[in-house]
Amino acid sequence: MKSIGIVGGVGPTAGTDLANKVFRHTNAHKDQEHINLYLTSCPSIIPDRTGFLLSGGEDPAPGITECIRKLAVCGADAVGIACNTAHSPLILKNVVIPEGVVFVNMIDNTCKKIHKRFGKSKIGLIATLGTIRTGIYKQYFEKYSELELVIPPDETCEQVHRAIYDPEYGIKSTPRVSARASEVVNNAVKQLKGMGCSAVILGCTELPLVFPQPDPALIDPTDILAMSLIKATEPQLLV
Amino acid sequence: MKSIGIVGGVGPTAGTDLANKVFRHTNAHKDQEHINLYLTSCPSIIPDRTGFLLSGGEDPAPGITECIRKLAVCGADAVGIACNTAHSPLILKNVVIPEGVVFVNMIDNTCKKIHKRFGKSKIGLIATLGTIRTGIYKQYFEKYSELELVIPPDETCEQVHRAIYDPEYGIKSTPRVSARASEVVNNAVKQLKGMGCSAVILGCTELPLVFPQPDPALIDPTDILAMSLIKATEPQLLV
Repeated sequence: MKSIGIVGGVGPTAGTDLANKVFRHTNAHKDQEHINLYLTSCPSIIPDRTGFLLSGGEDPAPGITECIRKLAVCGADAVGIACNTAHSPLILKNVVIPEGVVFVNMIDNTCKKIHKRFGKSKIGLIATLGTIRTGIYKQYFEKYSELELVIPPDETCEQVHRAIYDPEYGIKSTPRVSARASEVVNNAVKQLKGMGCSAVILGCTELPLVFPQPDPALIDPTDILAMSLIKATEPQLLV
Repeated sequence: MKSIGIVGGVGPTAGTDLANKVFRHTNAHKDQEHINLYLTSCPSIIPDRTGFLLSGGEDPAPGITECIRKLAVCGADAVGIACNTAHSPLILKNVVIPEGVVFVNMIDNTCKKIHKRFGKSKIGLIATLGTIRTGIYKQYFEKYSELELVIPPDETCEQVHRAIYDPEYGIKSTPRVSARASEVVNNAVKQLKGMGCSAVILGCTELPLVFPQPDPALIDPTDILAMSLIKATEPQLLV
């Protein structure tokens, strides 16, 4: 049986959320039928991605490389990173993938899936300021001319960023999503739908935690990465 | 910084549940303040624990040993297993702990905590038939003569076991806890309280999934193991 590797810890609950989504999409009726999976959650060695991209902070690539190396030593055949911002080409270019390990790109797979499902359409994006301002999704969207990426006004982007990062009420800081963070994120989604978007990408791995129930108009890249990791290892087990 | 290792996969969601409880009990306000954690979820190499204890199935100890070895190679300093039944002395006696790694025993720590919190009292137990019939908790309780362990009638034990294992409605088989499994488990807890128990141990790592909200009369060994793993690595970070 092939094995899945997850670089988690960025943030911690986004890593376990990805693992749980792998379990949920696996056609298994007892423990032993599940795919082998390894998770590293070592945030102390992976500096903040947005800080690196926007404010000259330390490069997270060496820490991510070290985690992938450990996952490969454990036996992982296909590896994914549970963090949108880490998929910036400026970070990924310095991440080393060991020979024999397949890197499954979350954003690439998300764009492919959106294009297949929605065809010509406007697609909204909410994310960290790092993901928005460095145009990560924009760069990946360029392959698909039928898709138009819609970013909310600056003020909304800043509110969403704080709903993720604020030390008091931000999703990264609280054991459960706070009412304030939930309200900000829900309002941003409504605003984008009002701007004509067929669907909205929850472009930060903390954001799906605001929506525990599936909603076809919300694109969860974590969920898509989970399915892509199964396809890359034991595709016959994908539900 | 010291690192935590989790033998997960037994079952898969119990492993990520333990990891999430570690994150929740850590005093961290940004990703980088969390404790390094590694998780293996390799159920295909860990045969069913109840099957081994009650029906002559294959020994899960070699698979557990292999997972702990991998966690040690990653750098884990303290390791826990997210499965009650695996804590049977008949299984643990064949599990090899590498030198320099501390094994944090979930049931030992649970008994210690119950004794401290409840003193002389009746404590109920719901669990798999493997855990019940081989008397795992009974053996650990022997150190505490003030505590009386109460097991529900056979019929209830069998219903709870099926609520965990049934291929149609069991907690291990469904992506979310089914209404039927939830009803069976809630009724068993009520029955034990009716028998005079001050608290009820949710003695299988799948059972806390039935109760997402904390309840002081329900003892969650996964939650206690999470806190014990933090104490064994970075105790100053325990909330």
